Amino acid sequence: MERKYIKDVQPDEEIIISGWIEKIREQKTIIFIVLKDSTGCIQVAIEKEKMPDMAKAMSALSRQSVVRFYGSAVKAEKVTLKGLEFVPTSFEIESVAQEIPISETTSQELKMDFRWLELRADKERLKFEIRTFVEAKIREFFLKKEYIEIHTPKITSQCSEGGAEVFELDYYGQKAYLTQSPQFYKQMAMASGFDKVFEIGSYYRAEKSFTSRHTAEAFCLDFEVAHLKSHEELMDLEEDLIKFVLRQTKERFGDEILRVFDTEIKVPIKIPRIKLADCFSIFKKYYGVEVKESKRLDLDPDGEKLICDYSKEYLDSELVFITDFPAEARAFYTKKIDGSFDCMGFDMLYRGWEVSSGAVREHRYDILKEQIEEHGVDSAKMKDYLEFFKYGCPPHGGVGLGIDRLIAKLLDLVSIKESIFVFRGPSRLKP
Amino acid sequence: MERKYIKDVQPDEEIIISGWIEKIREQKTIIFIVLKDSTGCIQVAIEKEKMPDMAKAMSALSRQSVVRFYGSAVKAEKVTLKGLEFVPTSFEIESVAQEIPISETTSQELKMDFRWLELRADKERLKFEIRTFVEAKIREFFLKKEYIEIHTPKITSQCSEGGAEVFELDYYGQKAYLTQSPQFYKQMAMASGFDKVFEIGSYYRAEKSFTSRHTAEAFCLDFEVAHLKSHEELMDLEEDLIKFVLRQTKERFGDEILRVFDTEIKVPIKIPRIKLADCFSIFKKYYGVEVKESKRLDLDPDGEKLICDYSKEYLDSELVFITDFPAEARAFYTKKIDGSFDCMGFDMLYRGWEVSSGAVREHRYDILKEQIEEHGVDSAKMKDYLEFFKYGCPPHGGVGLGIDRLIAKLLDLVSIKESIFVFRGPSRLKP
Repeated sequence: MERKYIKDVQPDEEIIISGWIEKIREQKTIIFIVLKDSTGCIQVAIEKEKMPDMAKAMSALSRQSVVRFYGSAVKAEKVTLKGLEFVPTSFEIESVAQEIPISETTSQELKMDFRWLELRADKERLKFEIRTFVEAKIREFFLKKEYIEIHTPKITSQCSEGGAEVFELDYYGQKAYLTQSPQFYKQMAMASGFDKVFEIGSYYRAEKSFTSRHTAEAFCLDFEVAHLKSHEELMDLEEDLIKFVLRQTKERFGDEILRVFDTEIKVPIKIPRIKLADCFSIFKKYYGVEVKESKRLDLDPDGEKLICDYSKEYLDSELVFITDFPAEARAFYTKKIDGSFDCMGFDMLYRGWEVSSGAVREHRYDILKEQIEEHGVDSAKMKDYLEFFKYGCPPHGGVGLGIDRLIAKLLDLVSIKESIFVFRGPSRLKP
Repeated sequence: MERKYIKDVQPDEEIIISGWIEKIREQKTIIFIVLKDSTGCIQVAIEKEKMPDMAKAMSALSRQSVVRFYGSAVKAEKVTLKGLEFVPTSFEIESVAQEIPISETTSQELKMDFRWLELRADKERLKFEIRTFVEAKIREFFLKKEYIEIHTPKITSQCSEGGAEVFELDYYGQKAYLTQSPQFYKQMAMASGFDKVFEIGSYYRAEKSFTSRHTAEAFCLDFEVAHLKSHEELMDLEEDLIKFVLRQTKERFGDEILRVFDTEIKVPIKIPRIKLADCFSIFKKYYGVEVKESKRLDLDPDGEKLICDYSKEYLDSELVFITDFPAEARAFYTKKIDGSFDCMGFDMLYRGWEVSSGAVREHRYDILKEQIEEHGVDSAKMKDYLEFFKYGCPPHGGVGLGIDRLIAKLLDLVSIKESIFVFRGPSRLKP
């Protein structure tokens, strides 16, 4: 006898169904059970007189226990669930559930302690079905363009962002770190002649941050392309990616996302590109907000929200690129724009959050070394990284995009925690 | 002007080409350069009289420097490379290479220090193109079957294999570990009702092992399926996966793999399943090898090689499943076969190496707790893990497969190191 998913159950077939007990309703002569698996629910009817042992066992059983029923379904027009009723001839109790320790009204922290019980809700599983789809489409985009997918080491001897907020570990007696990004290694791939690479993986940030957009273990897309000289080219590429992913996701899940998450995916015709300096003029002109000269190195969370409001209202896009940041405000490896204090770095914002960051990199050894020193870092500490640029390295650039953030924004979730299977933060190491 | 890949260069088009200088040959009136990018090589011809500055710059330039040429190709029948010669009208030197510190005869360790230079060889890039393809096909297999792709935390408070050989780190003042496998979390997904999940990611093993098949940072496929009761079903699934991946890879890369790696991909009609106990009878009967009673809990590396020899010679398969291990020799979470000391665990071997390990898991709380104690582990230490089984958990099973090992065997590489982008081992934390 074959086990069938509940969605596939047809009348008058001898099969097995297996799932959780959602409801038990005991009547005088019959016990009704709503059994649930990942594909749906079905009503199981047990006549007490015909099946006394089964009836006894079921009536003693707790909700959320797992049971396997052998039998067949019959048509039952009055039953709202599929118009079917399953009549079992035998059963196995697979797992008896203790009382479920969380409910709708439980605190968020307790729900996270019992994350696997929270994930049993259909809405939660749907999130991860959508996430699976989004990641598959991201990968499809790059595979079609013949990118190589790399997996860079996550344990490393050097820190890509200068050493702050990294997790340290003992590596066979040596000091090592968990990587904050694949930055150095995707640049290494450029020096290896790999030309076009991407990676989708986990990165680690020891920030003591409790905001709704931070996680200690972030899941990101990174890509890097060689022989590329302008950040406009990089933004073109990222724009194509994002529009492809949004369009595909809307087509496959748009209606469900609207129904379950009450938000509509909007695919922009064009993602606007606004220079950082122009953001501040826009804030003043459209919102009467004046930003101090000294705070014009980047957007703060309020500024990110405001420029997204502007983009949505006036430029018909929930996504926006911010470009031409001052070189001093970006990572040392960002290439400067010739004859300017600004650099070829950019961010992409989506519904008020920064979701990605990209740049053309400085690939010339001497200038890169200078820029490291300009950023107040001792270039001797970057010796291993600098080696990548000594033996011929093509110009290149790339992007890092936070997938947890992208999913959270796509589904209009309050916090990044809700888009992650098991979240990690400063006070969260369980389950 | 557009940059073209060398493979796409056509005569009489104004374009840009960009790449590494492979060779410089200076003649009396002309300088010939072989320029290489990720798609191939082309000959560049610079007439000294016409282009004195360019000629001067090129004649001073070192091999492996990166140059960008503007110009067009002309037909040149005598030229073996594509029958074309590129005639540049201008150039940019992107990156000047210092003398390359490795060569064919350099020691393996020094080559690994300069891994990115080693990776410049066409053979190396091909490996990672194949690896990209293999992983894409693995993913395709599961996505078609509507599996959810999960990403489990890599920083955890508990150790899946009991605490030996893990990397420890300080997590905001708490003791934490890098996961050795997603075992606990894919089981958690089963308790979450996710039903069918897979993950492709990195895991960490602090073994002081210097063999050709070990790495401190392993890249693995894991999958787990609920409502499944027999390990035969799991092996059926894994067999379908492996045959699909091998067949597709052979079709796409078979000829190149034969030419470059001198090995032929053979797709078995059926992957044999041999009980562990029968291996020892086979060793005696076919090879005159007697294995002591006390060593019959598992196969050692010699035994793995021998049973693969047997499978290849007598059963026409380079892959073989070993099944029915004694329960005491497998992880505590493995389900026992009713009425036997053996369990529902199995390994898959490929060309002499174990590449995967799978099992039906014990999902019943009380029995699982007992098995933990039987394995000499204090079940109190497994409290958080045991929680997953308290509130209703379906029967389930799954497999973990080492992708680094699979690629190494597929391409007949000597060591796992050769299949990994940047290797990590006890004495290897760089680059």
